[in-house]
Amino acid sequence: MSILLARRAQHMNPSVIRELLKLTEQPGIISLAGGLPSAKTFPIEAMREAADRVLREDGAAALQYAASEGHGPLREWVAAELSGQGMRVSPGQVLITSGSQQGLDLVGKVLIDEGSRVLVESPTYLGALQAFAPMMPQFQGLASDDEGLRADALREHAAQARMLYLLPNFQNPTGRLMGAARRAQVTEALADTGVPLIEDNPYGDLWFDAPPPSPLSAQLPEQSIYLGSFSKVLAPGLRLGYVVAPASVYPKLLQAKQAADLHTPTFNQRVVSEVLQNGFLQRHVPGIRALYKAQCAAMLAALDTHGQGLGLQWARPQGGMFVWLRLPAGMDAAALLPQAVARGVAYVPGAAFFADAAEANTLRLSFVTASAADIERGIAALAQTVKAALAAQGAAA
Amino acid sequence: MSILLARRAQHMNPSVIRELLKLTEQPGIISLAGGLPSAKTFPIEAMREAADRVLREDGAAALQYAASEGHGPLREWVAAELSGQGMRVSPGQVLITSGSQQGLDLVGKVLIDEGSRVLVESPTYLGALQAFAPMMPQFQGLASDDEGLRADALREHAAQARMLYLLPNFQNPTGRLMGAARRAQVTEALADTGVPLIEDNPYGDLWFDAPPPSPLSAQLPEQSIYLGSFSKVLAPGLRLGYVVAPASVYPKLLQAKQAADLHTPTFNQRVVSEVLQNGFLQRHVPGIRALYKAQCAAMLAALDTHGQGLGLQWARPQGGMFVWLRLPAGMDAAALLPQAVARGVAYVPGAAFFADAAEANTLRLSFVTASAADIERGIAALAQTVKAALAAQGAAA
Repeated sequence: MSILLARRAQHMNPSVIRELLKLTEQPGIISLAGGLPSAKTFPIEAMREAADRVLREDGAAALQYAASEGHGPLREWVAAELSGQGMRVSPGQVLITSGSQQGLDLVGKVLIDEGSRVLVESPTYLGALQAFAPMMPQFQGLASDDEGLRADALREHAAQARMLYLLPNFQNPTGRLMGAARRAQVTEALADTGVPLIEDNPYGDLWFDAPPPSPLSAQLPEQSIYLGSFSKVLAPGLRLGYVVAPASVYPKLLQAKQAADLHTPTFNQRVVSEVLQNGFLQRHVPGIRALYKAQCAAMLAALDTHGQGLGLQWARPQGGMFVWLRLPAGMDAAALLPQAVARGVAYVPGAAFFADAAEANTLRLSFVTASAADIERGIAALAQTVKAALAAQGAAA
Repeated sequence: MSILLARRAQHMNPSVIRELLKLTEQPGIISLAGGLPSAKTFPIEAMREAADRVLREDGAAALQYAASEGHGPLREWVAAELSGQGMRVSPGQVLITSGSQQGLDLVGKVLIDEGSRVLVESPTYLGALQAFAPMMPQFQGLASDDEGLRADALREHAAQARMLYLLPNFQNPTGRLMGAARRAQVTEALADTGVPLIEDNPYGDLWFDAPPPSPLSAQLPEQSIYLGSFSKVLAPGLRLGYVVAPASVYPKLLQAKQAADLHTPTFNQRVVSEVLQNGFLQRHVPGIRALYKAQCAAMLAALDTHGQGLGLQWARPQGGMFVWLRLPAGMDAAALLPQAVARGVAYVPGAAFFADAAEANTLRLSFVTASAADIERGIAALAQTVKAALAAQGAAA
């Protein structure tokens, strides 16, 4: 007896990263592979106090079913916060989701038909590809450079496109920030072509020296769906994110949300709403920024020290969690991983982040969870791995 | 500028119940319309202590990303609990979901293609219809009687069916319990026809005098997906449920879960896992049963008192939250609702619960959230409404 699966199940696949991480979760391995925020930054005590207060003062409501739209005060907080970043958002446009990953799932359900053309950066966030893939779109990767997505690539592929999925701030996996000039070009191309924008911003608050420019959605309010998250500024284990959508799409996202899980946990929404009172993030997030900036500096210093003369290329992130590294042409980061693990360091090969035309010689490094000392040791081991591979190539040639 | 929606968005619709409830949320209206458990039964203090302990002792892990499968100890608890009910379940078969509603969403994604034949009871749970509808199946309602789904109806419509969705215990909306003899017949028909069973059991623990027979899934472990929930025995605002699936389907459900929201909140899973220790439910659930049994008795007594001579039919539930009422033939429960609200009582018209061939003269009453005194007054008002409608019919005839 076997159960017949839907065709779309063929488009559901285990995360390559997840499978790789199993390899690397061995004692003694320095993992630069993770995508987790640093648990050191979690406001555990504030959460504990808020959970206690919510259950003491309003326990019955916090544990009961609630509206699919989300908890009113939390929606108001999100609208006010985004309005402070140059967007004009009313609480009625805010849908609270079970992490921003759920926002991607709902967007996929509501916007993607089988065969729909979906434009993505090349490379892009693997979780978005996983969320959209079961709806069976045709992905089109768009060329990028150090400033992010190229507006000419967008114009070239805009015909019939259902949406553009974009991570303009400290992108996962590249760590790249789209500057103001490029934002203006891409916004203009979107306005000209009418391609709807799905703007995902989980990392925008993690800037080192200066906040990113305003969201592109601020200029395209009727043409954009914006996703945000509390995972990187508070804690991911709460699974709290949000979607902001124009009135033309909001009701369908809401109905998809209701069908998907009725609503995001009431308790979690009320606890976070309590924690956020009185400008908590203004006091809390600077500490995360300082920690990540210092650890990023440690990684860049280690790359400067150990990476010379190996044909490596990397950018210098202005925020976020990741450094994107390019190995010499012809080298395969996935094939190299076992050798790196043997030398005590793990990373994520870059190929998984490409919707099409993967660049096999790329890899993603996180500077967030390992200590500065481990980062230094890990990068040294990675450099040794590359050096050995180059030597083996030379010997074979 | 408008954003083009996917075809499936046409199959997403606001819950009729939700819209009706807005009508009925007026001061002074006795609502027998809700589907909420009684907040009086929530173990707020146990939750508060567990939340405090989890954050004090293991805060970083409770707030971090975690495995998509769910928290190990909670999966073990579920496997042990179900094994005590006659199923053979290993923790590896348990997927923790964001409420059992999410289990329905995942099942729909993994099993339903456009046009797939999906068999449901007639009537059935509205939330399941909403979860499955975006995958664009063809629903086939199957005839039922007081014992529940008829096995002959299942056999008649089994050809090409992708699955049967079944709520055998104190069904929403009918309150009906499928007895042991009927279970054996339906199980045999499933085994003979090979139709996969989706068995949904949110209400099974809410029995009044005797627990229900074993799940049908116990006899069909390779052919069944079983869904359970903590919403009715602990609290729904935590959004915690689970799916149990055979090895042939589990990996795809897991991948769909990962794409949908990465994982169910770590914090909630750990808090509930703490609360469940040392047989908590064995002490806690009897109180819920006793409350609901008493309130059900109040509703049945009120129906006996006020419902005589009006051509009403209702069954006597053996558990759960609902009484299903049949008005005289030709009467429309939706059309009658404004008159009932004018007399101070609200209910849910039954038509929304039918996938096809709605019976307009049915309605659902909850005996859970209103007090016994309000139930008595509400049923009296409902009886007056029916009496007035009968008089108006008589006057018109």
